[in-house]
Amino acid sequence: MFLYLESRETMMHVAGLMQFTPPRDAPADHLRKLVDEIRALKAAEIQKPWNLKLRTPELLVNPLQAWVDDKGLDLDYHVRRSALPSPGDERELGIIVSRLHGHSIDFHRPPWELHVIEGLEGGRFALYVKVHHSLVDGYTAMRILSSSLSHDPNDRSRPLFFAIPPPGKPPRDDDDGGPGLFDVMAAVRSQLGTSRSVAGALLKLVRARSRKSELVSPLQAPKSILNRRISRARRFATHKVETERLKAIARRANGTLNDVVLALAGASLRRYLLEMDALPRAPLVAMVPVNVRPKDDAGGGNAVGAILASLASDVADPAEALDAVVASTRRAKEQLHGLSKAAIIQYSALVTSPFMLQLVPGAPGRVRPPFNVVISNVPGPDEPLYFRGARLDASYPMSIPVHGLALNITCMSYAGHLDFGFIGCRDTLPHLQRLAVYYGDAVAELERAVR
Amino acid sequence: MFLYLESRETMMHVAGLMQFTPPRDAPADHLRKLVDEIRALKAAEIQKPWNLKLRTPELLVNPLQAWVDDKGLDLDYHVRRSALPSPGDERELGIIVSRLHGHSIDFHRPPWELHVIEGLEGGRFALYVKVHHSLVDGYTAMRILSSSLSHDPNDRSRPLFFAIPPPGKPPRDDDDGGPGLFDVMAAVRSQLGTSRSVAGALLKLVRARSRKSELVSPLQAPKSILNRRISRARRFATHKVETERLKAIARRANGTLNDVVLALAGASLRRYLLEMDALPRAPLVAMVPVNVRPKDDAGGGNAVGAILASLASDVADPAEALDAVVASTRRAKEQLHGLSKAAIIQYSALVTSPFMLQLVPGAPGRVRPPFNVVISNVPGPDEPLYFRGARLDASYPMSIPVHGLALNITCMSYAGHLDFGFIGCRDTLPHLQRLAVYYGDAVAELERAVR
Repeated sequence: MFLYLESRETMMHVAGLMQFTPPRDAPADHLRKLVDEIRALKAAEIQKPWNLKLRTPELLVNPLQAWVDDKGLDLDYHVRRSALPSPGDERELGIIVSRLHGHSIDFHRPPWELHVIEGLEGGRFALYVKVHHSLVDGYTAMRILSSSLSHDPNDRSRPLFFAIPPPGKPPRDDDDGGPGLFDVMAAVRSQLGTSRSVAGALLKLVRARSRKSELVSPLQAPKSILNRRISRARRFATHKVETERLKAIARRANGTLNDVVLALAGASLRRYLLEMDALPRAPLVAMVPVNVRPKDDAGGGNAVGAILASLASDVADPAEALDAVVASTRRAKEQLHGLSKAAIIQYSALVTSPFMLQLVPGAPGRVRPPFNVVISNVPGPDEPLYFRGARLDASYPMSIPVHGLALNITCMSYAGHLDFGFIGCRDTLPHLQRLAVYYGDAVAELERAVR
Repeated sequence: MFLYLESRETMMHVAGLMQFTPPRDAPADHLRKLVDEIRALKAAEIQKPWNLKLRTPELLVNPLQAWVDDKGLDLDYHVRRSALPSPGDERELGIIVSRLHGHSIDFHRPPWELHVIEGLEGGRFALYVKVHHSLVDGYTAMRILSSSLSHDPNDRSRPLFFAIPPPGKPPRDDDDGGPGLFDVMAAVRSQLGTSRSVAGALLKLVRARSRKSELVSPLQAPKSILNRRISRARRFATHKVETERLKAIARRANGTLNDVVLALAGASLRRYLLEMDALPRAPLVAMVPVNVRPKDDAGGGNAVGAILASLASDVADPAEALDAVVASTRRAKEQLHGLSKAAIIQYSALVTSPFMLQLVPGAPGRVRPPFNVVISNVPGPDEPLYFRGARLDASYPMSIPVHGLALNITCMSYAGHLDFGFIGCRDTLPHLQRLAVYYGDAVAELERAVR
């Protein structure tokens, strides 16, 4: 599916930006030595899935498409050095990473890149890792990246992620000649019903909402500039906040940490859109992936579902807005908890289906979007991690803007912080880096409001 | 035509890499100030053609395609800062520029980029300018770039190239709604004959060679790895040599400077291909653009033609190889001088037609190529140029590799040097940066051989 969706404007790669402070005893050329060491690796030492490439890169969607070993893997291509122009601050880092994220992946090779970025203020450095979603999903990628780090600052010899066997199941290696992607495409199509028209099937799903009471969403997402077509260029901005600050707010409002994350997104989007005279009257609606316990699962197992939540962007008072968000997510989760596992999957397919509506030419910006933005909160490690003695300061996830969903906000918890990545289309959302600044301002305002 | 040829693998942009030494009194942040000044420009201050974008970027080849003003031109996008990782040597610069050249142009904007690259050894900096060939051709681009430089090291306020009206005729601005590109496409098609099949027309041209005696080429280009399909990634390498050294060799061999340029290319390609066990037995053939005086032009006017020349890559002895090149180009030019102006144009269309053979799916690597490589020598300014007091040290042209022509060598004369740019496909020609090193070695060898 992610190969099917790939285009010049909608690039289906995810990424992570990790910032590090090197140990005091690090020599000045430690990054050069690291890259030299990496480049000395042999292709055979590269682990699955990082050594896999597509069989027919010229024709991404092809019944004979499959993952095959890249015998001539060229590590020099995949591992790259970059440097920040002076002064090497967060702004310059944001510009470089936005640019790197706006370049499409080369499908003639294993679809990933590692950029070692030097020249950050204070001798710090960053790693930017880009992976196509068809190779591994973002969640697995972040897990693999984390597993390549150490809890021990004195562990100085840990290999890089692509030289470590992955914790999960690697994608199928179809050296035997069997079709790989085609099966997946067929499965996607059958999930959408027997209709040969994807567009028709999706519209059916959307219309079904008003009839199947179990699946009705109480929310109506307004039209907004967030839901226009996107161009190729990206803008990325980050914000880092102490988790305890948000938890304290949540306790006072009888809500969850996630409620606060959503209310702050609502407040910063409200300010950003007001400045452009583009704030819809109705509250913006977010699609929020959540873990739920289905009512028919006696073993207490989890399922990944998705809820639609109001961001209360129509409410000016921060405390009132947070209350509205808390009420909205509570209602949505109650509804989800009452569902069977099958219904949860169906419901989630429903709320995420607009993601596929972009397949319909001309649909984004015309079809009323069932939600305006995707906001994810990914749990990460609680304890500090190290890469060869360099402390991981922050780990920002970068997801995928698509036609109709020009903005994605994903945060990851790490060592007492929440690291927020705001990724969006540079043209649809001008100066979106302001959202990150406004997010920080909104934290302080909300703290004052609920005190 | 250049929009028609654009694909993920064959990107039709040209570029120039200019290296500068700043004046001694330049403040440490002079590049930052320069970029800030550029970004403060208003869109209306940007001159044609730099403010033009395509009307239908989603569909490059479109009867309604035209150049239109970009009212919302975003200079922040077009003008970018980069920095070299340590140690900031020629190798690191080559890596960065190869990478920049391998990224496709965004057709939703005016198709050009200016990269200000800091962090070169000794406080030096570089400008990398990328332009799509559909906006301006490489020759015009280099002229515009040169005209934005000054002969006066004390001229510190000269605007950048995109704020200066161009010396030549800008591309047609089709605000009136008339079709632009379509006319050009139609003209190209009519030049190819009335056959509706481009492939058929080209094959007719190729077959005609054996019948029309006036147009027969004495050369048969061998098959070589230079003439395979290319991938998306690029490798760029440079070499700079004193023009006088090559002229001295030319005098001793009774040849021209261009003959020496070709013989050196033959020697370095011979060594490069021998190392890969891929040297064809027959000599490699280069297509070389030349200025000629047609026999029917009484006024002594010039026409741009193209000759096919042997690179004598089959000859081990450097002096003998140079003699063979001199004989080959003399024969080719004599033939060209005997032609009428119309025949020169026809001949040039013929020898350059394989460039269009790449349009035929599957042709490159199967059809025997009429030549193996394009080698151009572009005349540049004789006197040193300055940009706001910074001395231009070298100016390297970067041309276009295409399917079937994986390598392009272009040199430009400047202030007593020849600046060579070797641009090629990273995968078809592994480690092509060695060609630049071998070129330097070949100069010394040839000097010893003709002494």
